[in-house]
Amino acid sequence: MSQNRPFASLATDFGAAYSAICAGVIYKIAPAANVLVLSDEITPYAIVEGAMLLRQALPYLPVGVHVGIVDPGVGTPRHPVAVRTGRGDVLIGPDNGLLVPVAEELGGVVAAHRLENPAYRLPAVSNSFHGRDIFSPAAAHALNGVDIAEFGPATGLLPLDLPAAAVAAGTLTAPVLYTDQFGSLILAAGPDDLAAALGDPPYGTALEVSWDGGSARVPFAETFGKVAEGEPLVWVDSSGRLGLAVNQGSAAARFGLSDAAVLTLRTA
Amino acid sequence: MSQNRPFASLATDFGAAYSAICAGVIYKIAPAANVLVLSDEITPYAIVEGAMLLRQALPYLPVGVHVGIVDPGVGTPRHPVAVRTGRGDVLIGPDNGLLVPVAEELGGVVAAHRLENPAYRLPAVSNSFHGRDIFSPAAAHALNGVDIAEFGPATGLLPLDLPAAAVAAGTLTAPVLYTDQFGSLILAAGPDDLAAALGDPPYGTALEVSWDGGSARVPFAETFGKVAEGEPLVWVDSSGRLGLAVNQGSAAARFGLSDAAVLTLRTA
Amino acid sequence: MSQNRPFASLATDFGAAYSAICAGVIYKIAPAANVLVLSDEITPYAIVEGAMLLRQALPYLPVGVHVGIVDPGVGTPRHPVAVRTGRGDVLIGPDNGLLVPVAEELGGVVAAHRLENPAYRLPAVSNSFHGRDIFSPAAAHALNGVDIAEFGPATGLLPLDLPAAAVAAGTLTAPVLYTDQFGSLILAAGPDDLAAALGDPPYGTALEVSWDGGSARVPFAETFGKVAEGEPLVWVDSSGRLGLAVNQGSAAARFGLSDAAVLTLRTA
Repeated sequence: MSQNRPFASLATDFGAAYSAICAGVIYKIAPAANVLVLSDEITPYAIVEGAMLLRQALPYLPVGVHVGIVDPGVGTPRHPVAVRTGRGDVLIGPDNGLLVPVAEELGGVVAAHRLENPAYRLPAVSNSFHGRDIFSPAAAHALNGVDIAEFGPATGLLPLDLPAAAVAAGTLTAPVLYTDQFGSLILAAGPDDLAAALGDPPYGTALEVSWDGGSARVPFAETFGKVAEGEPLVWVDSSGRLGLAVNQGSAAARFGLSDAAVLTLRTA
Repeated sequence: MSQNRPFASLATDFGAAYSAICAGVIYKIAPAANVLVLSDEITPYAIVEGAMLLRQALPYLPVGVHVGIVDPGVGTPRHPVAVRTGRGDVLIGPDNGLLVPVAEELGGVVAAHRLENPAYRLPAVSNSFHGRDIFSPAAAHALNGVDIAEFGPATGLLPLDLPAAAVAAGTLTAPVLYTDQFGSLILAAGPDDLAAALGDPPYGTALEVSWDGGSARVPFAETFGKVAEGEPLVWVDSSGRLGLAVNQGSAAARFGLSDAAVLTLRTA
Repeated sequence: MSQNRPFASLATDFGAAYSAICAGVIYKIAPAANVLVLSDEITPYAIVEGAMLLRQALPYLPVGVHVGIVDPGVGTPRHPVAVRTGRGDVLIGPDNGLLVPVAEELGGVVAAHRLENPAYRLPAVSNSFHGRDIFSPAAAHALNGVDIAEFGPATGLLPLDLPAAAVAAGTLTAPVLYTDQFGSLILAAGPDDLAAALGDPPYGTALEVSWDGGSARVPFAETFGKVAEGEPLVWVDSSGRLGLAVNQGSAAARFGLSDAAVLTLRTA
């Protein structure tokens, strides 16, 4: 049965309608497919946020054909690509770093090919909607069993420029990677970084979190429920990264922080 | 055919991506399932709003496995549960009252069990994403035919604290339950309460609606089309509750009201 | 296989939950269907925006049953209708102009019938949620093979009042049709209108775009990538219309413009 319903996912910064048009193109070419819209609400043009979402989500999804589109360079010479992973997935999207972290997570890049063969594009290709005209048709043909080598020449992939944490004795400095649905700020740092900088503080340790223009005293807590409603915490989120949150509230709103912030953590 | 595609629905306050990860977990374990995202945009932590949505929506959906997650207590000792209803559905979610009104609507609670058996969870369970690690796997196994008694010990369910209307001679006082997509305010009161308080006013009766800080003269109308564009009305919404709306506009914006408001209705 | 999974789409201004209730009603009556939510986030009551979305999207979707609901007149005597197109689709929605442009795009109106037969509605029909009670059941029965002539008497369709561009020598005046997900303003004018007014300006021509309260010098560009990040452009969008955009930004936010704006374009 699952082989009769080849699985596809779709993650974009397009909003509902344009994402659904992509799904419709896939169903038109591969009517037996099962297409899941993984997200249609990535922040527009936010390649890092999209890459982190794909890396976090795809390991939990069935092996299949996964389309990721955050593509500020649409209409420029950046290449559309298909990537075969060690797990057996096909990843499809722009060659702008978006697919690199998730490909590593799914067993690495086995092969990558440019999407150049007009037989696997829509007959008319627009300048601004490659999701519809190039990426989705390629996904549908991959779901129908076409080998990605048919799509075009083999290629390497451009890397993703990821912000990185700085670990020093007594200080962890970490940029915000993205803000989640609850307004929690997810950092480019994990519990290993915290341990290296602050000597493996146990849950309950009070931290001083500071940023350009402010600071707060915040406990390092195992779960939201360990602090009172409306109180902040630093915790390890479900993707394994450190985050700054407010129990049943929004840390972004509470502290006036955005994706552009850099946080410094010290023992209080 | 429908037996080959067991039906599931998913209602969360997670936003698109985390809800879709839950759907992906279900498809991975139960590849034949048909998963409908009922909502991914419940107001974060709004248990009453989620409970009202489930109660309103599920009677219109196929009998199946329905996951509801609004879970401010994730990571605390609150229990994850599965509930079998009189109609034959399986409801899955946190034991915080969220599932209680819809269970009553679907024929009552036939059985309820805690989700404790690690065989029906993901191998690693995080502290903050039980939707992915506990609720969705249980749903998938239920779709595959596993009896909910396999999930863990039988349990009772905690009640939902629902705000209630106060009926007096000539006065109906009702808290807002939630604000709908159009900005209409849905009240914890029905036409029976209105009849008891105001003597069954016919459509067209002018009402005085007042709240902490303001008031308005508003007709009780059968439909939006009975008032001019931009004009307010009190009407009975499609879930059978009284509401305050503005034809082709937002009552919440027009009157500066939120889910925290309490409205008093009198004959004008 | 595709005949075993008759295709449906659903485009509404209802938000996620009410749209999903409609999908649930369809699945309950037509369990083998494949229902794609084309959009649940059309601007409330925006008939023109909805009509433009349907016209742009449906040609890319499989032939099927397509429900479109933007229905400020729900509860008034406006008629619910089903339309058979030349391509073989069934379109379902209110007779308020919403379905007219897409019907023309899909081969024209072959037949149109009112949805009056109670056998193809839910048993109880509310005053405010015809999407659930009238439109979705009709869609499901059409998916099950019921001829639209069974739904009710044949009818004509009301036209859609579309804003139009004004072409003069040296001046193109065009109202905004809608704002897309990226904040780009899509105009009621195409490249033919630009050619007629300004003598077919080549890409790279500097235009003066003016509106009530402001103006900007903006290049006519083939793609977003032809201007620097943060810079505005006039381009032909993927639906074949002129638009005003900002590369990796929002033209609506940058210039303080909304769907109510009218733009005048001249050679700078």
